[in-house]
Amino acid sequence: MNEKLKKLHQLFYPKTVAVVGASNNPSKLGYHVMKSLVNGKFAGKIIPVNPKGTNIFGLPSSISLHEINEPVDLSIIVVPAPQVPAVFRACTEKRVGGIVLITAGFKEIEDPQGTQLHEEIRKIAEKAAIPVIGPNTFGIVNYANRLNATFTPEFSGNPQGGIACISQSGGIAHLLSFIAMRENVGFSKVIGLGNRLNIDFADIFSYLAGDDATQVLMCYVEGVDDPRRMIAHLKEVNKKKRVVVYKTGRSQVGDRASLSHTGSMAGSHEVYLGAFRQAGVLTVNSTEELLDTAKVLDRCPLPGGNRVAILSAQAGPGIAAADLCAEAGLELAVFDRETQAQVNACLPPLALRSNPVDMGPAWYNAEALSRLIRAVMEDPGVDGILLLTMFASANVDIIKGMREVLISWHQRKPVVGCILAPEGIWDTQIIELEERGALTNFPTPERAARALTNLLKSMVLRQKNEE
Amino acid sequence: MNEKLKKLHQLFYPKTVAVVGASNNPSKLGYHVMKSLVNGKFAGKIIPVNPKGTNIFGLPSSISLHEINEPVDLSIIVVPAPQVPAVFRACTEKRVGGIVLITAGFKEIEDPQGTQLHEEIRKIAEKAAIPVIGPNTFGIVNYANRLNATFTPEFSGNPQGGIACISQSGGIAHLLSFIAMRENVGFSKVIGLGNRLNIDFADIFSYLAGDDATQVLMCYVEGVDDPRRMIAHLKEVNKKKRVVVYKTGRSQVGDRASLSHTGSMAGSHEVYLGAFRQAGVLTVNSTEELLDTAKVLDRCPLPGGNRVAILSAQAGPGIAAADLCAEAGLELAVFDRETQAQVNACLPPLALRSNPVDMGPAWYNAEALSRLIRAVMEDPGVDGILLLTMFASANVDIIKGMREVLISWHQRKPVVGCILAPEGIWDTQIIELEERGALTNFPTPERAARALTNLLKSMVLRQKNEE
Repeated sequence: MNEKLKKLHQLFYPKTVAVVGASNNPSKLGYHVMKSLVNGKFAGKIIPVNPKGTNIFGLPSSISLHEINEPVDLSIIVVPAPQVPAVFRACTEKRVGGIVLITAGFKEIEDPQGTQLHEEIRKIAEKAAIPVIGPNTFGIVNYANRLNATFTPEFSGNPQGGIACISQSGGIAHLLSFIAMRENVGFSKVIGLGNRLNIDFADIFSYLAGDDATQVLMCYVEGVDDPRRMIAHLKEVNKKKRVVVYKTGRSQVGDRASLSHTGSMAGSHEVYLGAFRQAGVLTVNSTEELLDTAKVLDRCPLPGGNRVAILSAQAGPGIAAADLCAEAGLELAVFDRETQAQVNACLPPLALRSNPVDMGPAWYNAEALSRLIRAVMEDPGVDGILLLTMFASANVDIIKGMREVLISWHQRKPVVGCILAPEGIWDTQIIELEERGALTNFPTPERAARALTNLLKSMVLRQKNEE
Repeated sequence: MNEKLKKLHQLFYPKTVAVVGASNNPSKLGYHVMKSLVNGKFAGKIIPVNPKGTNIFGLPSSISLHEINEPVDLSIIVVPAPQVPAVFRACTEKRVGGIVLITAGFKEIEDPQGTQLHEEIRKIAEKAAIPVIGPNTFGIVNYANRLNATFTPEFSGNPQGGIACISQSGGIAHLLSFIAMRENVGFSKVIGLGNRLNIDFADIFSYLAGDDATQVLMCYVEGVDDPRRMIAHLKEVNKKKRVVVYKTGRSQVGDRASLSHTGSMAGSHEVYLGAFRQAGVLTVNSTEELLDTAKVLDRCPLPGGNRVAILSAQAGPGIAAADLCAEAGLELAVFDRETQAQVNACLPPLALRSNPVDMGPAWYNAEALSRLIRAVMEDPGVDGILLLTMFASANVDIIKGMREVLISWHQRKPVVGCILAPEGIWDTQIIELEERGALTNFPTPERAARALTNLLKSMVLRQKNEE
């Protein structure tokens, strides 16, 4: 690991964190940062820094970084922009490992003073080789050590998982986190890049390539100063991890707005998309698709091919999913003779016994359900399964009927589902199936079908990249 | 109102309901139907019919329809298919107003006996002019009188609203209902058409055209026997109500499957789409888009034009929404001089003060927020507003800051939002704003933008239809 990556590791895994601008006043961001660290139950030591030197969140504060008598691995800075250069100098003297700079008011504001300040602190950080996340960021979260170094304590509520959320927008990162909470999608890290003083996508990609906690990089990109460097690093990390990118600025208005927002060149959207494709990375078109794709990449094995079987407890959702799969170039698997015989043995002579299969008549028969599902999963002509089941009062036990066969199969091929009931009915069972690796579930059949489709697209793009 | 429509009205607003095949045994559909009626607190009288004559759900049962000493407005039938003709004859003798036939096993099964039975009961019903919902349906719900005539008691959990959900698939209707519960979308009726013995989309369209409780028809269509008749009635109802259609069977596999499922011609998808367009009706491509569009049609006034203002508490979501609006042909409004001056007065000189507006710097300033939002809403060059706000611990009061201006404005122009927080933080406030008609909210900025876009598309299609 080179020096920069070592320091980034220190930044994400600090033993001691100083909060410069810590406060007991809820109208200050320094209050919310302290709340995040303390309520998030950070595994290391927290040192509030505040000129008043009072207790903050019950912790004794230091009046300055200089006054701290031990090494500081990470310094989170929330003081006003004009004070930041002095704090940066203190950080270099203190040999701080890394900085999260939450403060805004640098390159992104129209005032030329912002750009000057930006340059000033960039030089200080570069000379001391200190990695800086920000400025103008909400911060970072590392779920491995419960480090919530953001101004939003609620980030600690996300379940832990294999997805690193890397975002150029705080708003989008918050959105992804809140939806992920509702839909039980687990994160390894959340990283708000902000205005990228000296740490950009490229650096994070290099770092995460070696991060065992991260399997998937879920990226929201508006635009960067050095797209070639980003793409080169993306290509490398894409060999070790799975990656999905949501790039905005497709339209002129969006592009102009992102230029103002991030303080850096956004530029031609098509050039970006072409570069992502060349790097073998899948791009998507909405936050919902971004999160769904990251989830399926994190939880499913790669399919062996494009032949999908649709097993649905009701016909309609199966038809909706079949449409979407067909449009995306997936094939509906033709069952081999043995599989079809098994399916026929499990269902009465209704029409939908080929693919998609309507399992409706087997609602009450756990044994038939299991046999049917297992036969289809084991069919060598099937590369992935879409499993769709809407709750009805009469079929409440259907999930119990499918449980064992799904758990023992353990997604040897992807099992992407839309198993849905009103809140409080199947929640525990669905979470159990997901946590045991037996199922990857989505709220609608179309979202399930799109996720499976994107899993396949991602695999094909990656293979091209490797050739 | 003609005779058929009068009888349909009797079917949806019965005083007395008989359940033929009612049961205390949870493994029977007749149990779940009784549970739906009783737990749903149906406003009329419920008479279980069961040959054993025991008490069912605490209600005395009759051993047959003949034995009931009062008029029966609606008869729900859940006995096996071979017994249905006899029950239909009893219904005609009893002069029952209407039938919901839940039983399956008619035209949709391969066995020619199914088709024979179908014809037999069709003739009985037609001769007596009894409208029949089904066979092979989950049933119907009417929220106005709390009639849950389905085998799924959970349908009673949906909030009441202006959307009639009309579905050719039970699975899709259940899905729409469960998502609607989570997202606070209100229904007037849920209608599972099943295999349409003598009541098809066309008849339901005619009936709902005169239903005061219904503002929006949300339709899931696979295929019908007489598309021309459906389209003619659709064109008529589209003049009185707002309509949105999700048609599956786009792909060959989907089309083949829906043929088997519904027992009727599906046929060329493009022909259907063309016909819907000619009828001035918007079609969509997923269950999620169907529900979102129905919601926006139910809750928003029609915009005067295609000029949208995007007000966002964080830049990223505003950029994502701007992309989507631009792609869909919406224009980003150019504020007039007065509006721009007001916006400039409310925000520091950051870049995003034109459209999209980044309200970030006004998080803490309710007065600035209100002034800014009101100025944009009143701008004559603005036809609709997208209001995007992601929660952060520090901006928890922003929703209070926007509350009054939104309530007093009362969507004189559409205010479509994505105001999002982790569960339990803003839920009550968002529901209050929605119920007071101040906001139409969605879970992601892209879904909000698409809903506003579809509201406009729907209006343009309807205007063409009227010309």
